[in-house]
Amino acid sequence: MKKTNYLLGYKDLYIVQDNDMFKFSLDSALLPNFVTVNLKTKDILDIGCGNAPVPLILSRRTKANITGVEIQKEVYEMALESVKINKLENQINIINGDINKIYNKLDKKYDIITCNPPYFEVSDSSNKNDSSYKTIARHEVMLTLENLIKISKSLLKTNGTLALVHRPERLVDILTFMRQNNIEPKKIQYVYPKKGSEANVLLIEGTLNGKKGLKVLDSLYVYEDGKYTKEVEKYFVEE
Amino acid sequence: MKKTNYLLGYKDLYIVQDNDMFKFSLDSALLPNFVTVNLKTKDILDIGCGNAPVPLILSRRTKANITGVEIQKEVYEMALESVKINKLENQINIINGDINKIYNKLDKKYDIITCNPPYFEVSDSSNKNDSSYKTIARHEVMLTLENLIKISKSLLKTNGTLALVHRPERLVDILTFMRQNNIEPKKIQYVYPKKGSEANVLLIEGTLNGKKGLKVLDSLYVYEDGKYTKEVEKYFVEE
Repeated sequence: MKKTNYLLGYKDLYIVQDNDMFKFSLDSALLPNFVTVNLKTKDILDIGCGNAPVPLILSRRTKANITGVEIQKEVYEMALESVKINKLENQINIINGDINKIYNKLDKKYDIITCNPPYFEVSDSSNKNDSSYKTIARHEVMLTLENLIKISKSLLKTNGTLALVHRPERLVDILTFMRQNNIEPKKIQYVYPKKGSEANVLLIEGTLNGKKGLKVLDSLYVYEDGKYTKEVEKYFVEE
Repeated sequence: MKKTNYLLGYKDLYIVQDNDMFKFSLDSALLPNFVTVNLKTKDILDIGCGNAPVPLILSRRTKANITGVEIQKEVYEMALESVKINKLENQINIINGDINKIYNKLDKKYDIITCNPPYFEVSDSSNKNDSSYKTIARHEVMLTLENLIKISKSLLKTNGTLALVHRPERLVDILTFMRQNNIEPKKIQYVYPKKGSEANVLLIEGTLNGKKGLKVLDSLYVYEDGKYTKEVEKYFVEE
């Protein structure tokens, strides 16, 4: 079932994915376009990189070194392949490991950390997915939001940026954990399926030891009249 | 300079205001339309009611008793007049006082507390307004956000609702103080001057001892092609 797709909107960029196991999503295309990157950005870490959509898309916006960490061996191997077919081995380095265990072994600090973390808190009533691949990617069985933000604090340079894509339901948790870890929320954008709906995706970035001052960017709408809107189509087209 | 205006969108509702001293704003028209009101709502408190736009508009949505508290004598008198010309003395009660001092003398608890509080933290660099009327209404000289939320906690019934209109820059503070006071944020809406701008108004409500579960409603845009949008025009037209 493994197949090679290309990321539309980035026609020169290919990604290896397996529709049964791990398919990259709109969320993963929005995050690397949302995060603030500049000419000083040298080192980026993507935690839970999956098959590497965030590092791949980031490579089109920055010359920085990008490290992806992925806990699942089979998914990590897809990420490696993705890097290879795009000839990005010099820019993107993928590590197979559990960030909870390896974060204090990484030899540098980062200007930017990105993460598309598991969205759901684990509870008895959690609507867990059958496949363990999907369960790990979607539920906080291996990485909780609080630990992710703590780890990010210890891995960011001063004024470094943590950028997450998550669900609006978790906004209060995210802001609370960020403040507790001296990561000041600076920029938020909400994504709505369509006009008149509630938001279902939250993009947020904060900076370590940053000053207060939050901006809420204009909302993003995914569909209009049953089709992708232009603002979303440039980042993502589903196959 | 005192003059009587009517609230457009509520053609049978009049408000007394003074353009030099205290003029009601779009924010005050959005809040009473945003807050969740139902048939069980019996008692509502509006803290810092100004010339009473929130109580007046709420009277069109509910039969509940509404109490407004206003610290400034001259503004309180305008609120009294506003209630009188609308013959709403049986539903709306206005108190002249400082909520910090009188909150523990109020003889009941409330289903809903609304507030359009001062937006700006006080600091040496605060862009304070000349008029003391406006300074008190806009800067946290008499009422801080933290105190407002603490006072609300002590005045709300269990599962009672606190609804605020504020600036998005203060989102993190609002959510932090709400959580610290067991008021769980439940509903948020952002208001944008126009498409493509950053949000400049935040509407938020939380419930005392409420369960987690935040909804972010669709965004509201104030202007389109230099005119009020239809969704805003039904609540407010500036004179």
